[in-house]
Amino acid sequence: MESRRVAQEGGKGILPDDIESKPLIGVPTRQSADLVGKGAEKSQWRIKSIVTVALTVLTSSQAILIVWSKRAGKYEYSVTTANFLVEALKCALSLGALWRIWSTEGVNDNNKLFASVDEIAVCTIPAALYLIKNLLQYYIFAYVDAPSYQILKNFNIVSTGVLYRIILKRKLSEIQWAAFVLLCAGCTTAQLNSSSDRVLQTPLQGWVMAIIMALLSGLAGVYTEAIMKKRPSRNINVQNFWLYVFGMIFNVIAIVVQDFDAVMNKGFFFGYSLITTLMILNHALSGIAVSFVMKYADNIVKVYSTSVAMLLTALVSVFLFNFHLSLAFFLGSTVVSVSVYLHSVGKLRR
Amino acid sequence: MESRRVAQEGGKGILPDDIESKPLIGVPTRQSADLVGKGAEKSQWRIKSIVTVALTVLTSSQAILIVWSKRAGKYEYSVTTANFLVEALKCALSLGALWRIWSTEGVNDNNKLFASVDEIAVCTIPAALYLIKNLLQYYIFAYVDAPSYQILKNFNIVSTGVLYRIILKRKLSEIQWAAFVLLCAGCTTAQLNSSSDRVLQTPLQGWVMAIIMALLSGLAGVYTEAIMKKRPSRNINVQNFWLYVFGMIFNVIAIVVQDFDAVMNKGFFFGYSLITTLMILNHALSGIAVSFVMKYADNIVKVYSTSVAMLLTALVSVFLFNFHLSLAFFLGSTVVSVSVYLHSVGKLRR
Repeated sequence: MESRRVAQEGGKGILPDDIESKPLIGVPTRQSADLVGKGAEKSQWRIKSIVTVALTVLTSSQAILIVWSKRAGKYEYSVTTANFLVEALKCALSLGALWRIWSTEGVNDNNKLFASVDEIAVCTIPAALYLIKNLLQYYIFAYVDAPSYQILKNFNIVSTGVLYRIILKRKLSEIQWAAFVLLCAGCTTAQLNSSSDRVLQTPLQGWVMAIIMALLSGLAGVYTEAIMKKRPSRNINVQNFWLYVFGMIFNVIAIVVQDFDAVMNKGFFFGYSLITTLMILNHALSGIAVSFVMKYADNIVKVYSTSVAMLLTALVSVFLFNFHLSLAFFLGSTVVSVSVYLHSVGKLRR
Repeated sequence: MESRRVAQEGGKGILPDDIESKPLIGVPTRQSADLVGKGAEKSQWRIKSIVTVALTVLTSSQAILIVWSKRAGKYEYSVTTANFLVEALKCALSLGALWRIWSTEGVNDNNKLFASVDEIAVCTIPAALYLIKNLLQYYIFAYVDAPSYQILKNFNIVSTGVLYRIILKRKLSEIQWAAFVLLCAGCTTAQLNSSSDRVLQTPLQGWVMAIIMALLSGLAGVYTEAIMKKRPSRNINVQNFWLYVFGMIFNVIAIVVQDFDAVMNKGFFFGYSLITTLMILNHALSGIAVSFVMKYADNIVKVYSTSVAMLLTALVSVFLFNFHLSLAFFLGSTVVSVSVYLHSVGKLRR
């Protein structure tokens, strides 16, 4: 169970999902670079919409692949190696995108791969935060069972909002705060099942660890956004390249610490299947979409996008896997939908 | 089970809860008459707050009495006779209040008991609507089980909002509509339990009947508000007196139709206990509070008030009866709280 959990989590890698490669999303490189420069509001809104939809669709299909792979049987492969491959793939995609940019635009100050020590150093921080969080994940299961952990993970929503306010100093209107509380309550409601009440028996240590993990996760997201936005004109592929280099390094550490024997005895690719390959591809693309969202939108959009994706996943699963939707799911979806509505209405009135 | 359900429902009588007797709520008669006349906004707000709090507290204690009486054993008394006594008590209280008013203010056009045929005729409509609804209640259980019916009753919230808009032509802001949807979702979420999903298996007839009953209930409430507000200067005790006269008459019909044999064989007061007496008293006072709310506030305030009361009841039950609160309850309460907040914020921006 634990390895599965990590597989779901780990899809996002030990690093935040932060690589972008424009051709994959369908926005031509030059165009988007121009747009950021000019700050053309309408086009920015268009990019924002496209990346948000892309993230939502990719996250939904990600969850569906997980369900599919669960149905197909147990995970046999090592999760840490898969995480490493996700990081490596994103790294390769960002290099490929840079290659295209260099060949059309030439190398300039914004798209050169070389970066200052300061610029590179900050890229270790999100990676380190995710490493700590993933290590904690092994300890929290001593206090919290897996279904309860799924429920407690919704703290991420609140922690992201709070840290977004405190660290990035971005303001949300009162109505948007209310919408954020509703998003958290709605997502949790949609996940309710007959054993959910056990979460209330979680011991204090479990609550504290869940809150710490939510803060770490929120902090990594917010920190990544800060990195991406510090130099708006800086090419996103370069920023991501460095973020993912550290993602690869930290995942090598994770392989050595957790799966060294297994990899040595069975080989790096033991247990890989078609689904595994698709999941790695999907996680890499989702990471790229998150990266776009961080650069052109923000953490709040990311949270909404992944929350809506969770609901879409359940709906699609009804058709694909004959899932039965619960009343709690309908109620939670209603609350999440109203939350999305209020978030946009609240913005207009700000 | 059915008779219990009716006992809970029936507390509100076969008639809307519409009698007021100022001394009971603590607002002196003359003062409130003056206020309505002058329309002093601040004082009106004060009355509105007092009656809302009174309704909330009375509704909460009503539900607690029901739990208490369930713990004490089965209902032995006839529900229709209890309903009749509730109507009769409210009628007596409104006459008592009128007596006080007449002795201090004398009889005038606004507080005279005599009413035109038109004024009296409309008072039959809410009573008739409630009678139809209560009769339907017996048939719906052929299609819907009792716990599912509790869930479906939350349609009342939506139907009240919709009819309030259509019939009374009162506007709610977009945010207030969103808040209303949340109120419905939140109340339902708070009531979720392991068997709630059965409601999704309700056959079409059950859904249709539940919706019709919600519309009848909403219509009766909205119609009562229209009656109360048609002549704002008309003394509320007179308006209620006539409403409750028809409440008594319709309950006599209900006794004859449903409990004639039982009453004839066992007597009118068979099975009455201290709790029964307290419940009748409480229902009468709740009815009086609803009446105030209809006159000085509106149906929306009533819906919020009774919804919050439901949550308060559960909280109080934790201490009184060692109830365990579910995660769903916490989530639902959160959503309802946000809904109350949004309703008030939405009002300011209207």
